[in-house]
Amino acid sequence: MADSASPSRRQFLLGGAAAATAGVALGVAGDRALLAAQHATKDPHGKTVEPFFGAHQAGIATDAQAYATLLAFDLRDETDRAALRRMMRILTDDAARLTQGVPALADSEPELALHPARLTITFGFGPEFVNRAEGAAPAWLAPLPSFKIDALQDEFSHGDFFVQVASDDPTTVAHAVRMIVKDTRGFAALRWQQRGFRHSHGTFKPGVTMRNLFGQVDGTANTVPGTGDFDHVVWSNEGWLAGGTSLVLRRIRMDLDTWDHVGRNDRELSVGRRLDTGAPLTGEEEHDALDLSATDAGGRPIIPPYAHARRARSDDPRERIFRRGYNYDDPPEPGEDENSGQLFVSFQADVDAQFVPLQRRLEELDLLNLWTTPIGSSVFAIPPGCREGGYIGETLLE
Amino acid sequence: MADSASPSRRQFLLGGAAAATAGVALGVAGDRALLAAQHATKDPHGKTVEPFFGAHQAGIATDAQAYATLLAFDLRDETDRAALRRMMRILTDDAARLTQGVPALADSEPELALHPARLTITFGFGPEFVNRAEGAAPAWLAPLPSFKIDALQDEFSHGDFFVQVASDDPTTVAHAVRMIVKDTRGFAALRWQQRGFRHSHGTFKPGVTMRNLFGQVDGTANTVPGTGDFDHVVWSNEGWLAGGTSLVLRRIRMDLDTWDHVGRNDRELSVGRRLDTGAPLTGEEEHDALDLSATDAGGRPIIPPYAHARRARSDDPRERIFRRGYNYDDPPEPGEDENSGQLFVSFQADVDAQFVPLQRRLEELDLLNLWTTPIGSSVFAIPPGCREGGYIGETLLE
Repeated sequence: MADSASPSRRQFLLGGAAAATAGVALGVAGDRALLAAQHATKDPHGKTVEPFFGAHQAGIATDAQAYATLLAFDLRDETDRAALRRMMRILTDDAARLTQGVPALADSEPELALHPARLTITFGFGPEFVNRAEGAAPAWLAPLPSFKIDALQDEFSHGDFFVQVASDDPTTVAHAVRMIVKDTRGFAALRWQQRGFRHSHGTFKPGVTMRNLFGQVDGTANTVPGTGDFDHVVWSNEGWLAGGTSLVLRRIRMDLDTWDHVGRNDRELSVGRRLDTGAPLTGEEEHDALDLSATDAGGRPIIPPYAHARRARSDDPRERIFRRGYNYDDPPEPGEDENSGQLFVSFQADVDAQFVPLQRRLEELDLLNLWTTPIGSSVFAIPPGCREGGYIGETLLE
Repeated sequence: MADSASPSRRQFLLGGAAAATAGVALGVAGDRALLAAQHATKDPHGKTVEPFFGAHQAGIATDAQAYATLLAFDLRDETDRAALRRMMRILTDDAARLTQGVPALADSEPELALHPARLTITFGFGPEFVNRAEGAAPAWLAPLPSFKIDALQDEFSHGDFFVQVASDDPTTVAHAVRMIVKDTRGFAALRWQQRGFRHSHGTFKPGVTMRNLFGQVDGTANTVPGTGDFDHVVWSNEGWLAGGTSLVLRRIRMDLDTWDHVGRNDRELSVGRRLDTGAPLTGEEEHDALDLSATDAGGRPIIPPYAHARRARSDDPRERIFRRGYNYDDPPEPGEDENSGQLFVSFQADVDAQFVPLQRRLEELDLLNLWTTPIGSSVFAIPPGCREGGYIGETLLE
């Protein structure tokens, strides 16, 4: 209705003779429209930047970029509190430059720094870092309690120092990772790198929920930055960590071969959502609320007791997390056909209060456990952001 | 000048009073321009498709997508000529569907097939494939002669059957690779996978030459599909391979740590081009021709004898190739900090006549050899395309 009314409204506004003249004007403006559209289509997003300085570190509330490399380091024996301060000053300087499309100091490939494509670099501390900094570690800053579903490998777990490098361009990620690794080298040894991806920038319209490699719409019920309880869920207000948060990383192998044997109906029952739209089995649209009490004609719950969507949900508003994970798909080991899964990443103010109860519910009875195995697990404290002239970690190290 | 003249021209066209009215018209058209620009910016490219059927296989002359996974398989003992025919019929059907955004038959995650983002799937045959097909193998279909710069690893080299899966979306690549691996499983075992990337779709304006992880503009002198000698360089006209070509894959490790010790001037001399623009040291713009005879005041050649750009060039028009490679950056091995380099991929009608002489010149005296090591090497015959109803390989297998 609005569309069909619109031409008449224009004619009314312009009047008869004026409308004829306006034809010429539209011709000129039409060219501009065309040019604008062409420019926009070809508008490169490589120069788009995310702010670095602020109350919180970037890369958490930031709309998730297409690629992320997560790194953990082991501190060298000689890296003491003063050395940690030097390290964090250097790395803050690197991140403040690189994220704004400016080469790092002594950048060996400065041209690779010029298109950040929303690059963010986010730092985190393990228990040993806080110990060497002579700071008070939150009670939750330790390996997670063991879960019976876990088959953890040391090569994907733990570490003293953590960095998340994320961008919409994989070459930018590779270059930034290299600069960070080089400048960390004197203080710490690389422990592991884990690489993840989502859909490319522009594959979908903005705001579409990602799919994981099982084909599921993944993350529908996530809290949204800038809305509702996000700030309460994510940001700590405890001591040096105020304005910071915690990160839980779980490397979850997905067994695509056994998942293949599961029919479409059973897949939807195991998740509690439809595969095509992500809508709950009790709803029509992706963002419809779950109706956990709904039953079928036989009195059975429509969303089964073992469904992931039911198990992941809590009535306790404290037991909420913010997920910001990635798919992974690495070269298979010799003799294997696949090496795929999810880098489950969550941020929450308190790991013990928010993440652990949720993970316990999933451990007890989540049908998805049949086709997934956690093979890596890490917890890091993510310090707050800093102002220009300051550095990440200053609330702990000064 | 053109910009400042433009308003007067408009005023002249519209006249005085009409110009006032036109202000309203521009207001309306201005909204449309804004809407068009917004729409274009948010226009998802996930649905963009590359044609599958044609005289040549897609994925060669196709403008290189952002991601590629290259796969090689070893044929099972029992896979005879009839089985190869079945395999290629099945895989052709998979590729014809997936590239058009249609799930494969029995696709276990059909939703992951709906956004091909210019997906192409390209098939190639090793010597053993042609042998089992009872066909005549071209003389060049064999491992390359050994070069003294090589440190080849079997895990990145050779194979009986080859597939290149490329798309602007990494999730699409992961899904298509999985479907291909599953449907090949009965006939052949996965030998290796190699993953590569270029800049993301949209990081730069279309047509910008990629940079490698040394920061160099890489591929300036490449022949361009649809122009000049491209068809002559690439497409074979020999027997069952007519309309096809050959693929050489070299996995070239780049030692970023030793490259770091090389100053900017020496880096530019080693390549013969400027790092910032990619222009030859004898020119101003990236696409300026090399002047190999130019000398400095002391009579020394401006582009040194050992420069890569000089060594890669030949006066013999036969010794030309078409490059379509990718950067790689895999998780480092334990105890190492990096695992980076280039998947050098070239297409040429005849490996012995076109690729080998060029590689010999680089082997003899290319300064870049100091910081690069070929660690994998493969040659495959790439059969022609097919029409709807046909299948890739039919010229060999029927």
